Amino acid sequence: MIQKTIIVNGVAHNIFVDQETSLAKLLREQLHLLGTKIGCGEGQCGACNVIVDGKLVRSCVYKLKRLPDNAQILTIEGIGSPDNLHVIQKSWIKHGGAQCGYCTPGFIVSSKALLDSNPDPTRDQVRDWFQKNRNACRCTGYIPLTDAVIEAAKVLRGEAKVEDLEYKLPHDGHIWGLDSKYPRPTAVGKVTGTLKYGGDLSLELPPNRLRLALVQAKVSHANIKGIDTSAAEKLPGVFKIVTHKDIKGNNRINGLAFPSNKGDGKERPILCDTKVFQYGDAIAIVAADTEEHANAAAEAVKVDLEVLPAYLSIPEAKAPDAIEIHPGTPNHYFTQKLAKGEDTAPIFANNDVVIAEDSIITSRTPHMPLEPDCAFGYINDDGAVIIHSKSIGVHLHKVMILEGLGLTDDKLHLVSNPMGGTFGYKFSPTNEAIVAAAVIATGRPCYLLFNYHQQMQYTGKRSPFYGTVRMAADKTGKILAMETDYDVDHGPYCEFGDLLTVRGVQFMGAAYDIPSIRGEGRTICTNHAWGSAFRGYGGTQAQLISEIVADELAVKLNIDPWEFRYKNVCRPGATNPNGQILDSYSYTEMLEAIKPKYEAALKKAKAESTPTHKKGVGLAVGSYGCGLDGADSSNARAELNPDGTITICTAWEDHGQGADMGAIGTAHRALTPMKVAPERLKFTWADTRNPVSGPAGGSRSQVMTGGAIRVACENMLSGLKKNDGTYLTYDEAVAAGKPTKYDGTFSVPGEAVNELGQGKPFMVYMYGVCLAEVTVELATGKTTADNIVFAVDIGKINNRLIVDGQLWGGVAQAIGLALSEDFEDIEKHKTMVGGGFPYSKDIPDNIELLYFEHPREFGPFGAGGVGEIPLCVPHPAILNAIYNATGARVKRIPALPARVLEAIKNKD
Amino acid sequence: MIQKTIIVNGVAHNIFVDQETSLAKLLREQLHLLGTKIGCGEGQCGACNVIVDGKLVRSCVYKLKRLPDNAQILTIEGIGSPDNLHVIQKSWIKHGGAQCGYCTPGFIVSSKALLDSNPDPTRDQVRDWFQKNRNACRCTGYIPLTDAVIEAAKVLRGEAKVEDLEYKLPHDGHIWGLDSKYPRPTAVGKVTGTLKYGGDLSLELPPNRLRLALVQAKVSHANIKGIDTSAAEKLPGVFKIVTHKDIKGNNRINGLAFPSNKGDGKERPILCDTKVFQYGDAIAIVAADTEEHANAAAEAVKVDLEVLPAYLSIPEAKAPDAIEIHPGTPNHYFTQKLAKGEDTAPIFANNDVVIAEDSIITSRTPHMPLEPDCAFGYINDDGAVIIHSKSIGVHLHKVMILEGLGLTDDKLHLVSNPMGGTFGYKFSPTNEAIVAAAVIATGRPCYLLFNYHQQMQYTGKRSPFYGTVRMAADKTGKILAMETDYDVDHGPYCEFGDLLTVRGVQFMGAAYDIPSIRGEGRTICTNHAWGSAFRGYGGTQAQLISEIVADELAVKLNIDPWEFRYKNVCRPGATNPNGQILDSYSYTEMLEAIKPKYEAALKKAKAESTPTHKKGVGLAVGSYGCGLDGADSSNARAELNPDGTITICTAWEDHGQGADMGAIGTAHRALTPMKVAPERLKFTWADTRNPVSGPAGGSRSQVMTGGAIRVACENMLSGLKKNDGTYLTYDEAVAAGKPTKYDGTFSVPGEAVNELGQGKPFMVYMYGVCLAEVTVELATGKTTADNIVFAVDIGKINNRLIVDGQLWGGVAQAIGLALSEDFEDIEKHKTMVGGGFPYSKDIPDNIELLYFEHPREFGPFGAGGVGEIPLCVPHPAILNAIYNATGARVKRIPALPARVLEAIKNKD
Repeated sequence: MIQKTIIVNGVAHNIFVDQETSLAKLLREQLHLLGTKIGCGEGQCGACNVIVDGKLVRSCVYKLKRLPDNAQILTIEGIGSPDNLHVIQKSWIKHGGAQCGYCTPGFIVSSKALLDSNPDPTRDQVRDWFQKNRNACRCTGYIPLTDAVIEAAKVLRGEAKVEDLEYKLPHDGHIWGLDSKYPRPTAVGKVTGTLKYGGDLSLELPPNRLRLALVQAKVSHANIKGIDTSAAEKLPGVFKIVTHKDIKGNNRINGLAFPSNKGDGKERPILCDTKVFQYGDAIAIVAADTEEHANAAAEAVKVDLEVLPAYLSIPEAKAPDAIEIHPGTPNHYFTQKLAKGEDTAPIFANNDVVIAEDSIITSRTPHMPLEPDCAFGYINDDGAVIIHSKSIGVHLHKVMILEGLGLTDDKLHLVSNPMGGTFGYKFSPTNEAIVAAAVIATGRPCYLLFNYHQQMQYTGKRSPFYGTVRMAADKTGKILAMETDYDVDHGPYCEFGDLLTVRGVQFMGAAYDIPSIRGEGRTICTNHAWGSAFRGYGGTQAQLISEIVADELAVKLNIDPWEFRYKNVCRPGATNPNGQILDSYSYTEMLEAIKPKYEAALKKAKAESTPTHKKGVGLAVGSYGCGLDGADSSNARAELNPDGTITICTAWEDHGQGADMGAIGTAHRALTPMKVAPERLKFTWADTRNPVSGPAGGSRSQVMTGGAIRVACENMLSGLKKNDGTYLTYDEAVAAGKPTKYDGTFSVPGEAVNELGQGKPFMVYMYGVCLAEVTVELATGKTTADNIVFAVDIGKINNRLIVDGQLWGGVAQAIGLALSEDFEDIEKHKTMVGGGFPYSKDIPDNIELLYFEHPREFGPFGAGGVGEIPLCVPHPAILNAIYNATGARVKRIPALPARVLEAIKNKD
Repeated sequence: MIQKTIIVNGVAHNIFVDQETSLAKLLREQLHLLGTKIGCGEGQCGACNVIVDGKLVRSCVYKLKRLPDNAQILTIEGIGSPDNLHVIQKSWIKHGGAQCGYCTPGFIVSSKALLDSNPDPTRDQVRDWFQKNRNACRCTGYIPLTDAVIEAAKVLRGEAKVEDLEYKLPHDGHIWGLDSKYPRPTAVGKVTGTLKYGGDLSLELPPNRLRLALVQAKVSHANIKGIDTSAAEKLPGVFKIVTHKDIKGNNRINGLAFPSNKGDGKERPILCDTKVFQYGDAIAIVAADTEEHANAAAEAVKVDLEVLPAYLSIPEAKAPDAIEIHPGTPNHYFTQKLAKGEDTAPIFANNDVVIAEDSIITSRTPHMPLEPDCAFGYINDDGAVIIHSKSIGVHLHKVMILEGLGLTDDKLHLVSNPMGGTFGYKFSPTNEAIVAAAVIATGRPCYLLFNYHQQMQYTGKRSPFYGTVRMAADKTGKILAMETDYDVDHGPYCEFGDLLTVRGVQFMGAAYDIPSIRGEGRTICTNHAWGSAFRGYGGTQAQLISEIVADELAVKLNIDPWEFRYKNVCRPGATNPNGQILDSYSYTEMLEAIKPKYEAALKKAKAESTPTHKKGVGLAVGSYGCGLDGADSSNARAELNPDGTITICTAWEDHGQGADMGAIGTAHRALTPMKVAPERLKFTWADTRNPVSGPAGGSRSQVMTGGAIRVACENMLSGLKKNDGTYLTYDEAVAAGKPTKYDGTFSVPGEAVNELGQGKPFMVYMYGVCLAEVTVELATGKTTADNIVFAVDIGKINNRLIVDGQLWGGVAQAIGLALSEDFEDIEKHKTMVGGGFPYSKDIPDNIELLYFEHPREFGPFGAGGVGEIPLCVPHPAILNAIYNATGARVKRIPALPARVLEAIKNKD
């Protein structure tokens, strides 16, 4: 240890530090400046940016031995505070720059450093700066961030007024609608770093808190012969080492398997007992006083393993000699069939049809949120275990872990923290049961923070599809039939693997009016990372495969891809693969709007292609459902408070996507007659003690929980309305014996698909058409997305900042999905950079969004969902654009340079 | 544990807390809002004041179960920050309201609450508010705090400008002098709560820090037969239990005994081994992860004791059957004699003289700083043990503990933190060796925070004198001779007990020109609280006794007390009891200035006395030395830094008295030719690695270290001066091969007194004359100090805010000393209230200060010290005023109502 004097945000601090400690840890764990976030922890994301002596640094890799004595450090707390926002922070709010908000303090500090040195940057200079400084954002696609910096710079230069950055309520007081850029309620907390995430709250637990570290498997498949914790228990700072023996319940996560699943869905242990099923599996938990002590003890736990063959892909797990990963359950444990219309075999056999067929492999995509997984828990005064995590399904997860822990319903409550992005991986419980087990075993508050390697290696991934699609069209280009066949590599744990497999029969070729379809999908157990939800869930994989084959079919037919799609997309009366009529027939309208842009893009690509750099244009169409499969419902409560505020109480989990704004915007719209000032509306963080709203997945929340909020608010309006048309105050309501709390329930009459894939799985859908322009460097195969136009029909819009952000960010993820992101190599892909995270210059500055606002029957005030659609359409457009540029089909994503190069070679 | 949502300084916080935890602990240890200080920890001091839902609360006793959900909490951090000071904070700075600064955040929060409810309070309403809310200040006497609130209120009401609160440098740029109210450098940190004290820094140690708790004796005298730590070691969170067996050195504090002391000065153990010598003695140290765990384990350590008779007063310890507390050393272990002039016996035997004689007992006074004792330590990268504490003698304490710990000189460094007041108790090491022992035994950073009971029961106290003084005067009232005889109860540890005893022969009757004196003082070992330094050290006790007797002599002579003093004080040529001529003969001048006020007061007392409430007027004169006894020296270094700032590097410890301003003011004065902007001057916190400046005690620092700073700065001027009269910059100096660092040493040619009390112990003295007006309620004996006029000659003045603060605060302590403060009953007196802490209404709002600025030969630019003089003069004036009011002499302080009542009864 050494002593140094440093000046943080203008105040001198005498610090006592280990020289090997990072500046970020000092700021967070010693000086409690929690606005500086730790994302990757290895200098790849910039969430930890601070300014040291005028220079931007990534504090997570800046060791204190480098820090000069009397160094001047500026953190987000020194830039502005909630009651004294800096111009950059105001601009960030105006442009919706904070989505999950976890990268925000780092970006704002970075922007401050940029504008300090260059007060008048171009957009490209801003993007270069973020690229150079590795400021990573996973939510926004960078566009609103660049917008925010450009406008802040203008104000700082005196060329615009600060007031221009501040939101003004329109005259009629509305905040709902496509024209509304009302800032989300959490925006101020996010731009100032004062909103506390799980890792921040963990550091504010009472001083007797214990830091957890996991003993994790370093092999992918093994029998456990023994766990020896004796040496580790004696190490400094260790309070307890928890193994499966300490768990009172059945030690299993309940994966809620379908009845037709060959497994029982209870194969995932909370802590491994008999076997290791995948790399990273948790074998024991060390509870200690500090991170270092916990980690040291975790290293010292001895696990005696009998290593088994690891099946890291579908072919390996399906091989005849493969043993059952879960003894008693075949590795191929679920099948979903599809049969729409007349048999397809005769159609394909007809010589008059043109057939395209291809086999495509999708990636095991990592979600790469900025905030690594974290949770904490404690036992409350009622003896209940309370777990705070990044759960996006608190009620769902409670059901999934209750029995495993051996708790009764009243002794476990789950709460979701503000989250630095999940994008779906937290649809599965990750750390909830582990932390609960530690809390129960120790009796003390416990917290578990993953580092980024753990985030990559031990949270669920988007499961790869190995899929083959055949399409047959008549000579005019009209699709007559489709056949699909696919395997889903869902890793070792089946939870939602059956559901995911069903998505294949729902979304392959879903945009098209195809009278006859036959298909089959199979779920395969492997020893690679377990499958979890991810934006576009199944629709992403399904539509990549079918949209490539559709493109191939257009080529075979010698019909322009736009013409081909325009001819085949669903028009009024057409049904989707499940035999369901669509809730909005907007494809043609969207394609028409895209057409002139498409034609111009083709012309431009031709003109600008060179012998070394080929430009191309691709199209794709697609859809996704808003809801859980089949019937769905949600609940909410509107509570009038004594101070005149109204709390919208739900369990709408906020990954960062905007549950705050979703709830407030919907409630404000519903309460229009009451003329409530929007700041009087409050939202809640999701909690199992709130009304059951269902998980925040499948783009269902705005529809389902939005619907429940609408009903609750309408009930409140009825309950509080006075004869003169005004409404009772809290005191008046109490005096009149009227309730002040109003419940709302909203249900939709969906029907899950049957064993042949027929039904009405969703009552609200989103639709999209995408145009992508790319450049391929022929020598290397390196592909760049140059320009994206994305037309969507997501129903009526609650808030423009939110949907713009969701779509820009989703398109950015689609670009990463298409070109760079992967988690196949457990070592190589364990970092953000290794996983192919898209930085600012990987995403084009021009992603044009076109909205086609058709109201949805089942959406509150006509609104649908938005989150999944950008992960269902743009990536096949990019793959098709690569073909357009090069004539080569890439058949496995990501379309890394080597794969593109190989496809180009194979083409010749 | 429970979860709550609270809004702290406008930001919502999700908190997870034990309901029994105090709000103060939540704010400090969970939310890291360290501006909220914990003083007494039991609702008696207001340092922890915060505003909850508009109401001022003492957060240390406000349990979280009381805190409403959604409570709005305002802490000092929410009132203003260094770059955005609130009007109250600016006013606090202007009026010098922050002395040690530890009470300051609480006072400012309290003032905010007052002004929120009453924007135009009278001075008395301000004082009532502070009284009602128990806002305790130990430094300032409350006057500048009331001033600050009144002026802030004016500005807040718009009746004065904010700019009026801001310091303006005079045209010529000087900051030195009686007219200078330049704010001390630490003022901003103190009014914003951003200056970190020991308890704050402890919470910023790396996460592997250990919290210490002491196993302390609950008896006052015992043999130790065994210490059993085995059960305690097994308790949760315990890392190690340290006993004397773990200490590598001789386990003794070196008390630096005089050669003539019968003990060797090494009787105080770091951790008790063979015996317990006083209540609270440290027997073992528990190092654990949390306060609760450390305390629980400390309770579980079993100590097997053979209890011995406890000698809690001088008569008990001197009784013939008393055993030796330290076997081998008699309980009366030191004697100092005094012989000035001719033998006194014949004079007293002369029938022509008038004789007064009385025996007075002084109190075991507790220092009662706002900040309880605290320290922390760690092993640095060079393997040295670093201890941060409230040491006011870092180099001295290093010598005192080095051998006991078994360390070599290069392996121990002591540093002083910003301190919330010591007033002298930290002239003795308290926790330094204990924390060092724990650091060595554990290898980890450790911290020890005392609660207020520990502060009261286990730090040194002002030692009681049991003294008899006789004075003989001729019929005209001229004092001819004095005889003194006194015992000093120094508790069980001799350190500085011999020195204190010497003070008796230096200051009894010191203001008077007494040709013949004989005296003897004895130091007695007892089992009550060990003696440590306290402002006025010895002079306080000595002059109380002699000034009461002088007053009695005036009565016997039937001479007005003013006349008597005017006749007898030292005039040019007269010598003090040590035979030394005075360095300033200003008593007559001061008495003359006091005279009209005295006469008016007498008239007023007569007019306003009622049959139930008697008013009276008292006088006293006195002096105190600035320095250690005998020869003294100090060192400093002036360092020109690359950025043009100049660091004044010393080990001038800052109890809160103003070492910051002392150093900067003196250096700025010395560097006048350089025309340095004052903000370019930096000071250092005391550190054994800085130049040896000697301890900050005996009002020596401004003289001695101020002198060393003057020399260092003058050396810098010589070294950097260019031919054109300007000075080299840092770069120029380096280029020219000139040094940038300049040492300065300053020594004075004092001579410690010899065995007969003759010598020149101090080369600079302070002098004072005090007029006190009191009211005594005859029915109860309750005495109130109504008005104080205090004339002082402390040489030239560095900074007015500092000396006003020192004098007002010192007079307030003298009032407490005279009327309420005590630490005699170990249980009853263990709290602030129990110890008689003076609150705002106990101190008059009118303490008038009169300055007589006679330059001192040995003071830098003529400056002397200031801190001790207000503890040497006002309290006898108060006792004499009680006599004047009632005709009764109180002969033991504090003059509690019961004692006054008894004296009144005995008089009749």
